[in-house]
Amino acid sequence: MAGAAGRLDTRHIHIVALFVQKYGGTSVGSTERIKNVARRIAKFRAAGHQVVVVVSAMSGETNRLIALAREFQAIPHPRELDVMVSTGEQVSVALLSMALIDRGAKAKSYTGAQVRILTDNAYTKARILRIDEERLRTDLKEGCVVVVAGFQGVDENGNITTLGRGGSDTTAVALAAALGADECQIYTDVDGVYTTDPRIVPEAHRLSTVTFEEMLEMASLGSKVLQIRSVEFAGKYKVKLRVLSSFEEEGQGTLITFEEDKDMERAIISGIAFNRDEAKITVLGVPDRPGIAYQILGPVADANIDVDMIIQNVGHDGMTDFSFTINRNEFERTMDILKNQVQPHIGARGVVGGNRIAKVSIVGVGMRSHVGIASKMFRTLAEEGINIQMISTSEIKISVVVDEKYMELAVRVLHKVFELDQPS
Amino acid sequence: MAGAAGRLDTRHIHIVALFVQKYGGTSVGSTERIKNVARRIAKFRAAGHQVVVVVSAMSGETNRLIALAREFQAIPHPRELDVMVSTGEQVSVALLSMALIDRGAKAKSYTGAQVRILTDNAYTKARILRIDEERLRTDLKEGCVVVVAGFQGVDENGNITTLGRGGSDTTAVALAAALGADECQIYTDVDGVYTTDPRIVPEAHRLSTVTFEEMLEMASLGSKVLQIRSVEFAGKYKVKLRVLSSFEEEGQGTLITFEEDKDMERAIISGIAFNRDEAKITVLGVPDRPGIAYQILGPVADANIDVDMIIQNVGHDGMTDFSFTINRNEFERTMDILKNQVQPHIGARGVVGGNRIAKVSIVGVGMRSHVGIASKMFRTLAEEGINIQMISTSEIKISVVVDEKYMELAVRVLHKVFELDQPS
Repeated sequence: MAGAAGRLDTRHIHIVALFVQKYGGTSVGSTERIKNVARRIAKFRAAGHQVVVVVSAMSGETNRLIALAREFQAIPHPRELDVMVSTGEQVSVALLSMALIDRGAKAKSYTGAQVRILTDNAYTKARILRIDEERLRTDLKEGCVVVVAGFQGVDENGNITTLGRGGSDTTAVALAAALGADECQIYTDVDGVYTTDPRIVPEAHRLSTVTFEEMLEMASLGSKVLQIRSVEFAGKYKVKLRVLSSFEEEGQGTLITFEEDKDMERAIISGIAFNRDEAKITVLGVPDRPGIAYQILGPVADANIDVDMIIQNVGHDGMTDFSFTINRNEFERTMDILKNQVQPHIGARGVVGGNRIAKVSIVGVGMRSHVGIASKMFRTLAEEGINIQMISTSEIKISVVVDEKYMELAVRVLHKVFELDQPS
Repeated sequence: MAGAAGRLDTRHIHIVALFVQKYGGTSVGSTERIKNVARRIAKFRAAGHQVVVVVSAMSGETNRLIALAREFQAIPHPRELDVMVSTGEQVSVALLSMALIDRGAKAKSYTGAQVRILTDNAYTKARILRIDEERLRTDLKEGCVVVVAGFQGVDENGNITTLGRGGSDTTAVALAAALGADECQIYTDVDGVYTTDPRIVPEAHRLSTVTFEEMLEMASLGSKVLQIRSVEFAGKYKVKLRVLSSFEEEGQGTLITFEEDKDMERAIISGIAFNRDEAKITVLGVPDRPGIAYQILGPVADANIDVDMIIQNVGHDGMTDFSFTINRNEFERTMDILKNQVQPHIGARGVVGGNRIAKVSIVGVGMRSHVGIASKMFRTLAEEGINIQMISTSEIKISVVVDEKYMELAVRVLHKVFELDQPS
């Protein structure tokens, strides 16, 4: 199956490949850990593979730099913040290169500007436009491990930019795309994507593969293994993406695939995601007329509040109820906006909400071709006496909002009923 | 006189000027100090001056980074060390720019690579080849304070380089030369160049001017106010250079001049320098023949030991004595080399040495045109019972080696006898 070339075990079939490997802040969080990463990379080189490494700042460093900047400006100037924060990765690439050189490997570090990773000029959240990869190819041909600073780039005027939190994943995927790498390996502190959080369900197990779309749903639902933008990027450029643990020697991690695997009997449901950082708000007795959704959510968006689920059912007598969820931290502020700006303006009957809720979702490409998944989910929850407050569905996901106190129970029973308790 | 344009006091004559100001690690050693520097620069801007600022890393930061690198390689790879160490100034320029912007000033930071400050590729001790100053000019015209990272540049292949310790002074002088600045102001933790160290002679006072050549002699003799290379650079490009305190508001510092000031009645001697970090070695009974100096000092240079004073007197009967001084830390190693490699090879009678010595020098361009300075120095020391072990002279300097225990006494009596105790 796909991904075999990316296996760590090259004893039997020796396929020389080009890997882009990304190591996050925790993986390079100390001298010992950086040396450990160097040892791991050296093994790949010894097997004849070409390796491009993307590293983040040592864990804690980015926050330290941001805190320092805030001593100067409550909201640090974005251009200057990027100049400063980008030093975190610059230190990491130099240290990892030294560690590699000290092991006898050839290695060379690059900042984003040196590569150069061209971005737009949206400081602190720039997007990659192009990568000049020719120098890296030359280094690779010369047997060099290329160590690239993640999370950063340079705009066309030479200003330093950063891609925003988690941007190192995007750097890795973009480099893999530009270089036509055989696999992009994201090393992190978990050994792959799980059916759900093992802290809640001890029987949760690692998925050997997950589809791109499932991964997107899992990530946006809070699985947080990969930055969502990097997964989109990988999908767009068909980069083979694997999530692995940097602390385990032999793990195969989870491969993210971009086509439904027709040869395999897939599980219908791949995982159970959950999120307890949300709050729900319902505007009651809303006139059921065109433009009403915009009139409700416009002021919320103007206040820079992100809305997650949005639900509007069919109305009665020209009236309807309009519900949505937001981050729990924005609950009071959003209630304020709705009560003071929206309700009088649109003539709604009332605004109610609650911040003691949780969202639980079942995710799986298999549900496309299977009926009865939703009813199975709802019945299971009903049997446990869990009331469903809101429902939202997509092609490969069903999300429900329940009282927060039932979240763990809901995740456990759904994990069991969809047969995720045993490895498939 | 020269330098009036550079005065802080612009109340009486308003001359709009372009200043390059350099602030060292101590001056930007904390949040408060960086804010203080921003306040100072804002005053210059408010007076209508254009300001380019060069900053070092916050004090301690460069050492912290080097120590971190050494956890990976005993001798860190020079290219990677430069990538890493250069982040120190990168953080400083961003912070100072934020502090300026927070005060309402326009400011923009630049790394050495961004400017770009083109250097050769001698990592950790690169030399500046050229500065592309056009972007800085544009920023200055737009009323921007340009904040440039000191100590760093980029080679023609885009590799990050550093200029070596104290290189920020050189960056400042090179920028001043490239921009044709009216004055290059080096802010430091002392308020100028003194006649000698006030800790030894309380009557020592600040010189309002010192010539380039005097400064060179004072710096190399251990006054350590400015990096010697930056002074040479300033001389070569006729940059008006002023040393000032970043902790005092109204000081005029010391202006370094490049021509003997013919209008002024100058003091004959400008200062008394001293150095107790040396050791002396004498090779006795050396055959007085061509090439002997090389045969003695070649093996010393091969061991990377710097030699300071070198003295060889006329010989007798085909034999002579050959003496030199070295850093005290190298004393044992140098004695070893001479006894085991040099002495048997050249057939010298013996090797003797001592590391309890100090070098005391009087410096002044005035001595060129005055006779009797040397004899006055020697007589003064003799009257105090201080035996002179070695003598070396240049056009504007006379250095003597004495027993270390007499160093302070020698400095004090010379400071008095050459009338440096009162401001001229």
